[in-house]
Order: sequence, then structure tokens, then C-alpha cells
Amino acid sequence: MYGIAILGFGVVGSGVAEVLDKNADRITLGASRELTLKHIVDIRDFPDSPYKNLLTRDFETVVNDPEVRVVVETIGGVGLAYEYTRRALDAGKSVVTSNKELVARRGVELLSLAEERGVNYLFEASVGGGIPILRPITQCLAANKIFEIYGILNGTTNYILTSMIKDGAGLEDALKLAQSKGYAEADPSSDIDGTDACRKICILADLCFGRHMDPDWLKTVGIRAVTAADTAYADRGGYKIKLLGRAVANPDGRISAYVAPHLVSSDNLLAGVEGVMNAIVVRGNAIGDVMFYGAGAGKLPTASAVVADIIDAAKHEHSRRLIAWKPGDPTMLRDSAELAGRWYARVAENENAVRGVFPSVEILGKAEGETAFITPADKGAEGASKAEIDAALADFNVLSLFRVIA
Amino acid sequence: MYGIAILGFGVVGSGVAEVLDKNADRITLGASRELTLKHIVDIRDFPDSPYKNLLTRDFETVVNDPEVRVVVETIGGVGLAYEYTRRALDAGKSVVTSNKELVARRGVELLSLAEERGVNYLFEASVGGGIPILRPITQCLAANKIFEIYGILNGTTNYILTSMIKDGAGLEDALKLAQSKGYAEADPSSDIDGTDACRKICILADLCFGRHMDPDWLKTVGIRAVTAADTAYADRGGYKIKLLGRAVANPDGRISAYVAPHLVSSDNLLAGVEGVMNAIVVRGNAIGDVMFYGAGAGKLPTASAVVADIIDAAKHEHSRRLIAWKPGDPTMLRDSAELAGRWYARVAENENAVRGVFPSVEILGKAEGETAFITPADKGAEGASKAEIDAALADFNVLSLFRVIA
Repeated sequence: MYGIAILGFGVVGSGVAEVLDKNADRITLGASRELTLKHIVDIRDFPDSPYKNLLTRDFETVVNDPEVRVVVETIGGVGLAYEYTRRALDAGKSVVTSNKELVARRGVELLSLAEERGVNYLFEASVGGGIPILRPITQCLAANKIFEIYGILNGTTNYILTSMIKDGAGLEDALKLAQSKGYAEADPSSDIDGTDACRKICILADLCFGRHMDPDWLKTVGIRAVTAADTAYADRGGYKIKLLGRAVANPDGRISAYVAPHLVSSDNLLAGVEGVMNAIVVRGNAIGDVMFYGAGAGKLPTASAVVADIIDAAKHEHSRRLIAWKPGDPTMLRDSAELAGRWYARVAENENAVRGVFPSVEILGKAEGETAFITPADKGAEGASKAEIDAALADFNVLSLFRVIA
Repeated sequence: MYGIAILGFGVVGSGVAEVLDKNADRITLGASRELTLKHIVDIRDFPDSPYKNLLTRDFETVVNDPEVRVVVETIGGVGLAYEYTRRALDAGKSVVTSNKELVARRGVELLSLAEERGVNYLFEASVGGGIPILRPITQCLAANKIFEIYGILNGTTNYILTSMIKDGAGLEDALKLAQSKGYAEADPSSDIDGTDACRKICILADLCFGRHMDPDWLKTVGIRAVTAADTAYADRGGYKIKLLGRAVANPDGRISAYVAPHLVSSDNLLAGVEGVMNAIVVRGNAIGDVMFYGAGAGKLPTASAVVADIIDAAKHEHSRRLIAWKPGDPTMLRDSAELAGRWYARVAENENAVRGVFPSVEILGKAEGETAFITPADKGAEGASKAEIDAALADFNVLSLFRVIA
């Protein structure tokens, strides 16, 4: 028997059980063997679940069961999830997870433990939900030097920003709508403040650039400062405001990485990514730009990615996946403020005052006492660093300031 | 030594040599070994090429060299390419190719020969150029039942259609522009008539649905019937005309597959895919919709996909990739004309005559003596089959008729 155990029977965990059942024939074909869901560990009771006979509160049952070959960790967080992952790997079982926090913080250590024990630690579902992204980066783009990766990595904030654009709603109202639809949690701070997107861009950067990038090292700005006025000015000028995680390799090898709201030009397909959908752009020296798009969260899409990893672990029981990155330290980062680019600003000044500083500026709109504009890329082709734009705007009362991406 | 040989030193073949050199460090890391380009087979001389010392006219050198482990077939067609591929596989060498015609026609046979010999036959570059698509379908979406796949599979026609929309050019002028930029060949028929897209949708359908679908069995309509009037009417109504390859699984297990121009709604990201770019949408029962976007052709993007396959072959020398499909026959197809949907029509009638037949029609525009419109989805939610739309339009002089996709 090739046994599977699920730790944590929440949205993703129960989705994994559902997909394993629903698509059993295709999964057996893919894995070249039958996979049997044997245990589900949760502290809660699920008396009405069709899986109630598999439920146990005792992780020891899993770790001591030699028939369990793959453990699915869908607990979340870095506490119990970390402990159980270590113990499962240590016991020679592969671990598959959707837990971005654990991968972003402890990936180096857990991948190294997996390697020592000759098993796999796989986490396709940790970034972009169901979107195939981590495996394409490590395999399909293996012939490329990747110099930039960025994307819409959080569905909750993208849903909120989409509502703000479409309904002209303010952040508070759009957040309430998202909560009423189940797209935002009661405490939405890890989404709204960019923490979730930060963990995901770190995992992407780990894979693209080969060294651990800790979420604590990044400047992370969420969407709290985005107003309905900003989304409307942007929209009128052919831009959409999107929360992006972004990591760029500099010529000196250091990485500029951060999370922040951006104005995205309508020429960029990311501008058309609406609601809870996610999309990620990878830029390589041979391939050019490629984009991956799909549902970034949700029960079945995320479960679909988890189960693909289970299939992979089953196929590669005796040949490990070569996924790993080295330890890193904060000196590998270049302060993201130094990264040059174009900027959107909304200032409490009239157009003449703005044109006094930026003669060839692109005005997006103006209202009583304020002007919204995009700075030209006139400091060379590159645009301005944060210090340069701050200096240029020094005499203005700046109401909003976001980066622009073409 | 882990030797590589390239057969055919054209655009893609020389790109493979370039990528192997340029990104050697990353490739060595990915393959966990050094790859050495040892031979290049071509009947032409390349006296100025940095690879001239590797050039030979003699395929026997390659097939008899035990150090050659992977043969790259970038000859194209089903003649010599077929013979050399068979002989290389037979000699126990893995073969990697971008040759869509050969894979679409002889994939079953060549994959089966590769399996017998315990080697790999890989062809990521045959669809979507550099876009990772075949491997994500077989691996990342392995937990899904895929019920539909469609996309913009030919960059030449997409470039021509984009010019027609943006410049209001007719097909002939847009084609000349594409030829002058090197995006279309002197004889453009395999692009313009949909033959190239047909081969690609067949390969995608082979992988998604598990049985050989021969290009000869599909209704394939290219872009010759698309006029500047059509692209303009569509654009005004928020649609873009795109040549799509499409394969849909019916509830009875048969596949509806075809190539034809479609009006794509601007809510669909495919509408924003411009110029020579390609994009493919996969619809699965767990994942929902995912989209893959990137350069569908071009020297380095295509070479990047070929080299990723070389890396994969090198990593999996002793564990074959599980890529295969079974033989098929035309009875697995359902006549694509039976597939219901919405339709765009341009007819030599006035609006009143059109509204007489379709009271709730969406009029896209009209001119002296003609009306362009989209039929409502009022035959149930599904819309009309080809026979139904033909019957409804029986009294009209139909100038253009294309399917619509939301």
C-alpha cells in the first residue's frame, strides 16, 4: 500500500481528500500506482464527514505507520506544522504542503533534512494556489538565467482592488464585500498588509536565485494607502492598481525584492487579472517573458496542486526532486528603494506646479486642489529611485506615491 | 562525457547551441552534470560559425558515437527527421525536438520506441515555443480531469490579426508586413491556413485526453476569410478576432476539436495576447482555468524549451518520463460543427431584418447594406450548433461567420 496521511482537515486538507477520491483514476495513472488515503489528523471531530473513519487526533499513528509514504501538511503556520514536518521527514516520509509561511521561513532546513533522508519536500501549492509555477521554474525554465519575477500573488487584495476599480468603492467597503463573500478573513491583516504576498515572492526568489530570502528582510507595503481616487485616476489613464510582489536581479548579483501596490499598464496582461485570480511573470534571458495565470487560492485549485505533488513524490520515491536553495543573508539584498522606475503620484498641487517640476509629465487627472500624474522615464531610460522621486517631490504635499510597471 | 548532437543547424538548432553556451553554468546545475555539444549535423557549410569544428554531414558519426546521449532533432518535417529520430532512439539515445509535425503524426510510434529502448522522446518546444505547457499538463495538472484546452497557437497569424486590428489593414497588407519583419515565411500557407495550429492542438489533445488525434481528422480553418471589416466590428464591440485551436471533451467521451478564427471577449485574457505571442488555456475539474503565456516561436525562446528537455533527459537517464498516449481513430471525434456556442455574423441585411430572426441580438455595427452581430445564447445557455446557426441564417447573404468565446 502507498499510504497518504493528511495533517489538518481544513479547507485545503479536505479538498485534497476530495480530489484524491474524485479523480482517482487519473491520479492512479499519473502515479503509476494506487494511492490510499489512510489517516487524517485533526483535533476537531467531523461526525458528518465521509472521511470520519480516517480521522485521528494522534500524529504518532501517522509517523509510526510504515505504510504512510506521503504526509500532506495543511495545518499552516510554523509551530506544530514545523514539528510534524520535521518528524515525518525524519521518519523517511515525503512531505507535501501548501504552507507558504513554513516554506518561506524554514525551507532551507526542511529541504536539507529531506535530502538527508532521501525523501521529497514539495510545495507547489504554497505559491499561486493551483497555478503551476514552482515546477515550471525549476524544470521548464532550467535553461534560463532568470533576471526578474513579479506577480499578483494574493487573491484577497486583488479582489478588493478589482472592486475598488469596478464599483468605485473605498478600501473599507471593498474589504467588507470580500469578507462577506468569504474571500477575506475576519482579521485580514496578513493579506491587506502584504505579508502573504511577501512570503510567496520570497519562495519564488529562493527558487529563481538559489539563496534563502527571509520575509523579514523585505520592505512590504500592503494596500491600506490605496484610495478610490487613486484607482479611478489610474483607470482613466489606462492603468490598474495591483499589489505586486517583485524580485529583480541587479548586475552585481544582489536582489531588489519588495511588495508594494503598482500601477500596471493595460499593455501588460497582469492589468486584466481580476478578482481572486493570481498571475506571475517570469523573465529569463532566453525565454523572454512568460506568464502563468489561474486561481491563486480556493479549496479545489489548491488541492489540485497538492495532489500533483503527491503524484510526483510517488513517482520519484527512489529519485529525489532536485529542489533546493542555499542559506542567505540580508547582504544579498539591495535596498529596493534604490531600484529606478517610473512613479505615480497624487499631490495637493495644481497642474502648473506639477509641470514646473516635471515638464513632460503624463497627467492622469485632477480635481479641486490635487493632481495625479506619472513621472516620465527621463533620468536615462530607467526612471527615478525612491530617493530621487522624493527629492523631486520635496516641495509637494504627496497624497499617494506608487511605482508604475509597463 | 554526456554528449549532445544537434541535427539541423537552422534557427532553432543554432539557438540550442547558443543557449547551451550562454547559460552553461545554470544548465550544469540543473542537469547535475556537464553537457557537451559534440556534433552538429547539417548538409550546409557554416564557415563563419563558432561551431564549425563540430559540423558534419554524416549522421552515422552521431548514431555510432557512444558518448552522444541526447540527439536534438531540429530538422523539421516527417522525412529525414523521422528516419533519424527512429535510428537515434533505436541506438539508445534520447531525442529532444521542436518538430510539431513529426510529434503530431508519429508521436505514438516514437514514444513507444523510446519506451522499448528505455530512453526519452521529449518535445516541449513543439507547442507554444518557449512556453512551459506540455510538462505542466502532464505533471502539475495530473490531479485534474481536463475537459477543455484552447489557445492562440500560431504567432504569425496572431501578428497578422493584431496588425489588422491596430492598423485597420487588410489581410494582404498585414501579411506583407509580417513577411517583411521575418514573422511570416515566403509561403505562409501552413500558418495562414491553420495547419501549424492544427498540429499543436493535436499534440495538446493527445496529452490531455490520452489518445492520438491525427491532424487530418480535424476541421481546420485559417484566417483567409477574416476581413478588416470583421476585426473592426469586433473591436468596437469589445472583442478581438483570434485564431484558436480548441479541443473539448464531450460528456460521452468524444472530443470536439478544430481550428478556426473566433471572436474573443475582452474579459478573456487571450484577447490581450498580441503580436507573435501565444497563450494556452487549460480547463480542469479541480483547478478551474489556468493560462500559460509567452513567446510561441523565435530562436532563443524555442531553444530554451529544447534545452530544458535536454536537462530533463540528462536527469532522467535511468528513469523514463511517463509521457505517452494510445493510438486513436476518427470515431473518437465528434463533428466540431455539432458543438454549440454563440456566433458572430456579418450579413448583407439591415438591422431590422436581423432583429426579425434574432430579437435579442447584440449588434456590433452596421454599414451600407450590412450588419454585424453576435447571436444570443438563447438555445438554452449553450447557443447554437453550426447546423442551427446555418438554418437561422438561411435567408441571409452571410459575409462572415465565426464562433465567439467568452
